[in-house]
Amino acid sequence: MKIGLDIMGGDYAPQATVLGAIAAHGALSANEHLVLIGDKEVAVNILQENNFNPDHFEFVHTTEVIGMGEHPTKAVVQKPNSSISVGFRLLKEGSIQTFASAGNTGAMLVGSMFSVKAIPGVLRPAMTAIAPKLKGGLNILLDVGANADCKPENLLQFGILGSLFAESIYNIPNPRVALMNIGEEEEKGNLLLQATYPLFKETKLFNFAGNVEGRDLFGDHSDVIVCDGFTGNVVLKMAESFYVVALKKQFKDDFFDRLNYEEYGGSPILGVNAAVVVGHGISTPKAIKNMVLLSRDMVESGLVDKIKKAFQ
Amino acid sequence: MKIGLDIMGGDYAPQATVLGAIAAHGALSANEHLVLIGDKEVAVNILQENNFNPDHFEFVHTTEVIGMGEHPTKAVVQKPNSSISVGFRLLKEGSIQTFASAGNTGAMLVGSMFSVKAIPGVLRPAMTAIAPKLKGGLNILLDVGANADCKPENLLQFGILGSLFAESIYNIPNPRVALMNIGEEEEKGNLLLQATYPLFKETKLFNFAGNVEGRDLFGDHSDVIVCDGFTGNVVLKMAESFYVVALKKQFKDDFFDRLNYEEYGGSPILGVNAAVVVGHGISTPKAIKNMVLLSRDMVESGLVDKIKKAFQ
Repeated sequence: MKIGLDIMGGDYAPQATVLGAIAAHGALSANEHLVLIGDKEVAVNILQENNFNPDHFEFVHTTEVIGMGEHPTKAVVQKPNSSISVGFRLLKEGSIQTFASAGNTGAMLVGSMFSVKAIPGVLRPAMTAIAPKLKGGLNILLDVGANADCKPENLLQFGILGSLFAESIYNIPNPRVALMNIGEEEEKGNLLLQATYPLFKETKLFNFAGNVEGRDLFGDHSDVIVCDGFTGNVVLKMAESFYVVALKKQFKDDFFDRLNYEEYGGSPILGVNAAVVVGHGISTPKAIKNMVLLSRDMVESGLVDKIKKAFQ
Repeated sequence: MKIGLDIMGGDYAPQATVLGAIAAHGALSANEHLVLIGDKEVAVNILQENNFNPDHFEFVHTTEVIGMGEHPTKAVVQKPNSSISVGFRLLKEGSIQTFASAGNTGAMLVGSMFSVKAIPGVLRPAMTAIAPKLKGGLNILLDVGANADCKPENLLQFGILGSLFAESIYNIPNPRVALMNIGEEEEKGNLLLQATYPLFKETKLFNFAGNVEGRDLFGDHSDVIVCDGFTGNVVLKMAESFYVVALKKQFKDDFFDRLNYEEYGGSPILGVNAAVVVGHGISTPKAIKNMVLLSRDMVESGLVDKIKKAFQ
């Protein structure tokens, strides 16, 4: 298996990404190879400074970088030699089996849709995030920002994607899929949620567990929580702020440790024809390492094929 | 000033509401009188058990109660002798200057709209919540559930309502009003937010401070944060869960103390022709006391007249 890593992506790249690659290397098995995509000379320098033999990695040298603030579509078109554009080319060709980057999220979404493309039947791929449960375990939240405006059929598909992800990657059998709403009762919510509930209630595609509310994010009423990408993004960033508050206040607790995004490595883009993971812009080496391992798990579990099968 | 309090509303009523009334009495000045609306006999018993002279209060006896789970419109129509229905009748007549209840939120909204009615020009009244800032002070969040689906002109009006509330009740001069969004840039967001930003940018009705994100709820980029009622309700309940986590983990900190809903007493319904406050269903005596004081502050500040003037 070849795992492509964009070493130019993220606020602390290439230092954090290359150090993350070193950390990931130690956790990968002999047949799992990291392909570092970016400025080779810079990467080799960082590796040598850290007394790490560059021969452990393959390199694909690139000459351009898509900045964090650049317009995604324009950047992908205008910078064909950027690490993100090249990464998707390699992924499409099959030279790598998965591609991960902590760079421009929009460019990762655009790159996914333009290169490996959405799986036939998937209307809108979605991004996920993880919310730890107070009692242990986790909730998978999606969408967290790929689709700011959604229709009921999009949310239904997010339910399928989230359920397969929870089962394949986190070994949660028959995951309970809930809708993020503003009340438990069926008739609660905005027009989108009111129209979505009946679809969820009738579906046999996953195990529907009813509505949950904002206070249930860290609870055990569900394993997967579905929402539109606007709501999900607000919720995700609020959860991150809880972690920041806990850090500032120096609260030591296992729950807050598990709230740390670094533990989960990143958000997969579910519903495209390959395993793609987007890391947090502020990714540290630890986060990069876990992003690489999540990419590996996505390939190993055959998640993409499972999704293809579900949408046949 | 006569302050009407529904003593039958809330999960712990009438015990918590009557004890809250006792606590509020000690904090009110000589010309601020509490009118207890509900079962007089039960209330007098609780007062006597607590060695408190019932003569300190006025009573309006009622014979019906609207339950927490009842359908709001039906309940208000079918129970004209409920504490909520009677409270609004007194408010409309002018026998009380403000009405507060920790009972059925929907019934409080319906009661407001049917009795004292929306202020002319206000398309959709809104409910607020408070988010403490880490550095001290607070953000006012609205709408938090009165309007699950909103149009750009609704959000613009929430900006006016929130700004006047922040200024009148919390003495924040020229409050900075932000939009809750999923990115800082003008073009970010769902269709609603994209259509709303230009209205906020052009308005001279309040001090627009740009977009904020979920992570900024406890930050100092704004004093008022505007969102649709769906997003606001999810955010509010998530913030409450943060307080619950802190309690469970026994984290002692001023910030978490300020996150306690009991401190703020309740959510006013802004944009109707009288001062109306809705308390949390789980209101304790402390929360009831603060709900009464918030009601008093709303009357004393002349907030309703200020809102009327702004919408003339």
